[in-house]
Amino acid sequence: MIRVSVVGAHGRMGSNVVSAVNAAQDMELVHTIDSGDDITAITSGNTDVAVEFSVPSASLDNVLALIRNDVNVVVGTTGWTEDKMNRVREELVNHPQLSVFIAPNFAISTVLAEHFAAQAARYFESAEIIELHHPDKVDAPSGTALHTAHKISAARREAGCAPIPDNTQSDGGSRGQIVDDIHVHAVRLRGLNAHEEILFGNAGEQLVIRADSFDRSSFMPGVLLAVRHAGKTPGLSVGLDNYLDL
Amino acid sequence: MIRVSVVGAHGRMGSNVVSAVNAAQDMELVHTIDSGDDITAITSGNTDVAVEFSVPSASLDNVLALIRNDVNVVVGTTGWTEDKMNRVREELVNHPQLSVFIAPNFAISTVLAEHFAAQAARYFESAEIIELHHPDKVDAPSGTALHTAHKISAARREAGCAPIPDNTQSDGGSRGQIVDDIHVHAVRLRGLNAHEEILFGNAGEQLVIRADSFDRSSFMPGVLLAVRHAGKTPGLSVGLDNYLDL
Amino acid sequence: MIRVSVVGAHGRMGSNVVSAVNAAQDMELVHTIDSGDDITAITSGNTDVAVEFSVPSASLDNVLALIRNDVNVVVGTTGWTEDKMNRVREELVNHPQLSVFIAPNFAISTVLAEHFAAQAARYFESAEIIELHHPDKVDAPSGTALHTAHKISAARREAGCAPIPDNTQSDGGSRGQIVDDIHVHAVRLRGLNAHEEILFGNAGEQLVIRADSFDRSSFMPGVLLAVRHAGKTPGLSVGLDNYLDL
Amino acid sequence: MIRVSVVGAHGRMGSNVVSAVNAAQDMELVHTIDSGDDITAITSGNTDVAVEFSVPSASLDNVLALIRNDVNVVVGTTGWTEDKMNRVREELVNHPQLSVFIAPNFAISTVLAEHFAAQAARYFESAEIIELHHPDKVDAPSGTALHTAHKISAARREAGCAPIPDNTQSDGGSRGQIVDDIHVHAVRLRGLNAHEEILFGNAGEQLVIRADSFDRSSFMPGVLLAVRHAGKTPGLSVGLDNYLDL
Repeated sequence: MIRVSVVGAHGRMGSNVVSAVNAAQDMELVHTIDSGDDITAITSGNTDVAVEFSVPSASLDNVLALIRNDVNVVVGTTGWTEDKMNRVREELVNHPQLSVFIAPNFAISTVLAEHFAAQAARYFESAEIIELHHPDKVDAPSGTALHTAHKISAARREAGCAPIPDNTQSDGGSRGQIVDDIHVHAVRLRGLNAHEEILFGNAGEQLVIRADSFDRSSFMPGVLLAVRHAGKTPGLSVGLDNYLDL
Repeated sequence: MIRVSVVGAHGRMGSNVVSAVNAAQDMELVHTIDSGDDITAITSGNTDVAVEFSVPSASLDNVLALIRNDVNVVVGTTGWTEDKMNRVREELVNHPQLSVFIAPNFAISTVLAEHFAAQAARYFESAEIIELHHPDKVDAPSGTALHTAHKISAARREAGCAPIPDNTQSDGGSRGQIVDDIHVHAVRLRGLNAHEEILFGNAGEQLVIRADSFDRSSFMPGVLLAVRHAGKTPGLSVGLDNYLDL
Repeated sequence: MIRVSVVGAHGRMGSNVVSAVNAAQDMELVHTIDSGDDITAITSGNTDVAVEFSVPSASLDNVLALIRNDVNVVVGTTGWTEDKMNRVREELVNHPQLSVFIAPNFAISTVLAEHFAAQAARYFESAEIIELHHPDKVDAPSGTALHTAHKISAARREAGCAPIPDNTQSDGGSRGQIVDDIHVHAVRLRGLNAHEEILFGNAGEQLVIRADSFDRSSFMPGVLLAVRHAGKTPGLSVGLDNYLDL
Repeated sequence: MIRVSVVGAHGRMGSNVVSAVNAAQDMELVHTIDSGDDITAITSGNTDVAVEFSVPSASLDNVLALIRNDVNVVVGTTGWTEDKMNRVREELVNHPQLSVFIAPNFAISTVLAEHFAAQAARYFESAEIIELHHPDKVDAPSGTALHTAHKISAARREAGCAPIPDNTQSDGGSRGQIVDDIHVHAVRLRGLNAHEEILFGNAGEQLVIRADSFDRSSFMPGVLLAVRHAGKTPGLSVGLDNYLDL
C-alpha cells in the first residue's frame, strides 16, 4: 500500500488526484493539505509520495519542504525554471534515495504520441501536426504541438532527412505556422478539449498518431503511474516519458 | 442501354471514362474520339449522351457541335466562364429537350460533404475546414475548400448565427486562413490525394464530415450518375448536386 | 423572452437543462419542479414551454397535465409507446395550437449524421457503421446505430441499389453484426462516451460522417432548439429532425 | 551507389521495385530477371543487393542461388516456413558477411503502427483494433490485425495488466472477433485498400494509431530501406522492425 498525501487538494487538479488515489486499490490517502495548512505535517513517517498541484509561486517551497521531510514528490504545478530545478537538485544531494518528478503533461496518450512521432519522423517524407482545442484557449498553437514539432524536426535532422516536399506557390495562410520546418495547424472548436494529430506520409501510405484528452480526468492515469514509480529513479526527473518503459 | 460516346478518350480522365462505361451494365460505348477526330460523327442517331473531357480551349466548340447533333452532353473539362455558358444556353434554345451538364467536381463524396456541411452549418457554434492534398498541388487552400467555406458562411448568415467563438490572442499563423469567417487549414502530405474534413462543434458534441478522393477513379461514379440522368433535366445545369436527390 | 419551466429539475438531465436555460439569453427560467411538487403550478399564465425529463412511469401524466394547462411541452423522458402517444394526441384535440415534442435523442450531431447518412446511402456501393461507447454500456450495438442501419437500408432499397459487395469467405466474427444488410461494429473503450461513424465507399472515394457526443451537455443545444421551436408545429412530433430545417 | 538487381521484375510488385530503384538517387539498377531467366547472372561482381519478389514455390531456390553468388538478398515473396528459413541459415554459414532479409510487410506505416501499439498496450485500460480493406479480400480479419492483436495481448500479459473492461451483456455479433482477448473489427468498403486503426483508452483519454496503405507503392519505401540496410546486419532477419531504429 503506497501512502499518498496531496498538496493543493482543493484545487481543480488536486481534487481529481484525491478521488483517483481513493479509487486506486494499491494506494492509501493520508494527508490532504492546501494553502494555509502546514506542509511539514507530511513526513516519511506517514507518507511515501506527495503529489503537489499548487501554484507556481508556492511550488518550489513546497517541494523543498517535502524533500527535507524525506518524502518522494510528484509535481504537476507549472512554471518550473532551470533555476528552480537546480535548487531542487541541491536539496536532493542530502537525500540521495529520494525522487522528485516534474511533468509538464500527465496525459499518457499525449506523451506516447509525441514519443512515437519522434521515432517515426525519420521514416517519412512528409510530417504535419494538427492540434485541436476548445475556443477559450488563448494561445495557438498549443505548447504540446510546439514541443512535438521540435522533436520531429530534431529526429529528421539527426537522420539527415531530405526537406519535406511542398510545391505550394500561394496559400494566404492556409498552410499554417511553420515551427522548426514542420507545418502546424490549430483548430478551435466548441465541444473539444485538447487533441493532437500527427500525420506522416510516404508514397502510397500514411501514419496517423492521435491523442485525445477529453477532460481533466485524462491526467490521472499518468499521476498514478508517477506515484507508483516514485523512489525507483532517485533524483530529479522531468517528463513522463522517463517513467514509461519505451 | 444508354449509348455513350467519349470526347477526349485518350486523356487521363477520358480513358478512365471509357473503362467505366465499358464496365457499366446499362451502357454501351459507341464512339471514342480525341483531338483531330471529327466530332460530328457523334449524332443522335448513334449516341444518347456524350461525355466531354478535353481542354478548356476546345470544350465550348465541342459542346456546341454536340448540341447541334442533338446529343446530351456531360462535361468534365474545366475553365467554364459565364460567357461560355451563355453561348451554350443560346444554342440550347433550339434544342429544348437536350441537357448539358457541367460539373466542377464529379466526386460524389465531395459534393455530398459540401451539401451536408451547408445544411449542418446553422446548428453549430463552431465550424472549421481541413483540406489535405498531395504535396505537388500548387494552390492552397483547394477550390473545393474555398467553395465549402463560402457555403457554410452563407448558411450561417441566412440563419442569423452568432459569430464563431475564438479567444485566440496570439497564434503566428497556426489558425490558418480565414475564408468568409471560416478558418481553413491546408495539409500537404506525400501519399494523400484529395481529402476534405469539415468539423462542427457545440458544447459537448462534434460532427465531422469527411470526403476522401483516393484517385482519379473516384470521379467515375459521378460521371456515370450524370450520364444516367442526362435528358431528364433539360437545359444547362452546373454542379452534381443538381443531379442528386437531396 | 421564452418563459421556460423544467419538470424533473433535480435529475441529471433536468439539472443540465436548468443551467442551459439560465445561460440562454432568449429564455427565462420560471418554475423548476420535481417529483412531489405540484405540476399544475405550471400554466400558460407563467410558462410558454415546459421541458419534461422525468421517469417513464410519470412522463405521460406530466404531459397530459401540462397540455390541460395550455403549455407547450418538450419531452426527453424515454419509454414512449404508441399507446401513450395516442393518449397525448387525444388530449391535444382540444388544444389545437399546442405542440408536444418527444425526442429519442437530443444530440444535434447524431440526428444530423443519421439524416445525412440516409441521404447519402443510395449513392455508394458500400456502407458500414462503427459505433463507439464507454465500456459500461450493457447493450451493443447502440439503439442509434440500429436505427441508422435501418434508415440506410431503407434508402438503398427504395433506390434499387445493388447488394453491398463483400467477398469475405471466412471471418470468425470480425465482420460484425449484420443489421438489415448493413454491417455494424461496436467498440467499447474507456474514455469514450457515445460516438457513431458511418462509412460509405465507391471506387476511389470514401465519405465518412461522424457524430461525437462527449458528455451530457451535448444534448442541451438540441433541447434549446426544441424549446425555441415549440408552438410552431402544433400537434405531436417525434424526433429532432422534425424541428431541423433539412 | 548501391547496385541492385530485381528477381521477378515483371510481376506486380517487382515492376514497382524496378521503378522505385530507378528513381532512387543512391541506387543503380543492374539486372532485372524473371522466371525462365538465369538467376546465376546475378553475382557479387555486378550486384550488391538482390530484391526477390517471385512466387512461394521458387523463392527458396532463388535465395539459395543468390547466397552462393555472394549477394545480399531482400525477400518480399510470401510462404516462408521455419523449414525454409533453416535452409537459408545453413547456406549462410559459409557466407557470414551476407544478409538475407524477409519481410511479411514492407509498409513502414503498418510496421511502425504495430510496434507503437505493442509499446502503448500496457499503459491503457482498453484496446481494440479496427482493420479496413477493399471488399474483394477473402479473409477477415487481416493477418496484420491478427498479428497486432497478439502483440498487444502479449505486452499486456507481460506487464500484468487487468482484463479489459467490457460490461456488454448482449450484442449479436457487433462486438467483433476476440483475438487473444482483443476485440478485432473488420470493415470491407469499396474504395479502400488496406488500413488498420488501433484504439487505446483510459479515463478521459484516447490514443489512436492508424496506418493507411493506399496502394502497392506504399511498400516501396520499406523495400528501399531494406536495400540500404543490406549487409549491415549479417545473417537472416525477419520483419522490417529489425531494420528500423526504434
